[in-house]
Amino acid sequence: MAIYSHILLAVDFTPATDTVVQQAIELSQTFKARISLVHVVEFVQMDLSNDLVLPQELEIDQDLMNLATQRLQKLARKLDLDESACFVTQGSTRREILHLAEEHGVDLIVIGSHGREGIQRLLGSTANAVLHGAPCDVLAVRIKDE
Amino acid sequence: MAIYSHILLAVDFTPATDTVVQQAIELSQTFKARISLVHVVEFVQMDLSNDLVLPQELEIDQDLMNLATQRLQKLARKLDLDESACFVTQGSTRREILHLAEEHGVDLIVIGSHGREGIQRLLGSTANAVLHGAPCDVLAVRIKDE
Repeated sequence: MAIYSHILLAVDFTPATDTVVQQAIELSQTFKARISLVHVVEFVQMDLSNDLVLPQELEIDQDLMNLATQRLQKLARKLDLDESACFVTQGSTRREILHLAEEHGVDLIVIGSHGREGIQRLLGSTANAVLHGAPCDVLAVRIKDE
Repeated sequence: MAIYSHILLAVDFTPATDTVVQQAIELSQTFKARISLVHVVEFVQMDLSNDLVLPQELEIDQDLMNLATQRLQKLARKLDLDESACFVTQGSTRREILHLAEEHGVDLIVIGSHGREGIQRLLGSTANAVLHGAPCDVLAVRIKDE
């Protein structure tokens, strides 16, 4: 039995995304695992306790979602993946990734990780956050900082 | 080219070690990668600013090192690995693992990770610490908490 059968690749569209995508694709080929892509649009800050939510803010959110969906689908086509393997969600990156992993029986989450130290270490990273509470294995792909 | 050629498996001898070892072994077989084992004996607290360092403390450290070496070599034999693939070091777990990884051209560190949340999340974990500053990819193998 292959070790992993469903890989969830977290894509953030930074210049380093290619490294992480490449690694995830090679792994999926090695394990003959299916692969899903996820991009999370972080919330635009809104004060929901306030009655006044500006329509522009909602539009910005929707625009960001549409843009992310287009970019993810473009990446999926390039990787010869079906559009149904693309997930664009909105909210907390960590929570959305873990939720998707649980919901879709993912057994490996692949995510980029900067090898940062010092203050950036204290601030934490997405890879770090995803590690906590993950229902499955997590592969942090080292991104070489320029 | 295989994605990974040298896996460093961090062993802590907790009951969950088996899960992590199993995953690392299967990965090493898949990638035809060599595998090294590391166990870090955390420092026994000593006040080095004080002239008085009790000989018993040094002996405890040495006893712990010897015990760990025996256990790691036993594991290596079970896994059909050479004893030269065993590293027992003393100090900060994170620093020692990262140092070994760098020194021996490791391209994947495999380490167990508890999916803990809440206070234990805040306290951090070894997997989390290793992620920071790692010179290579890190696979956190999810350990099912009892």
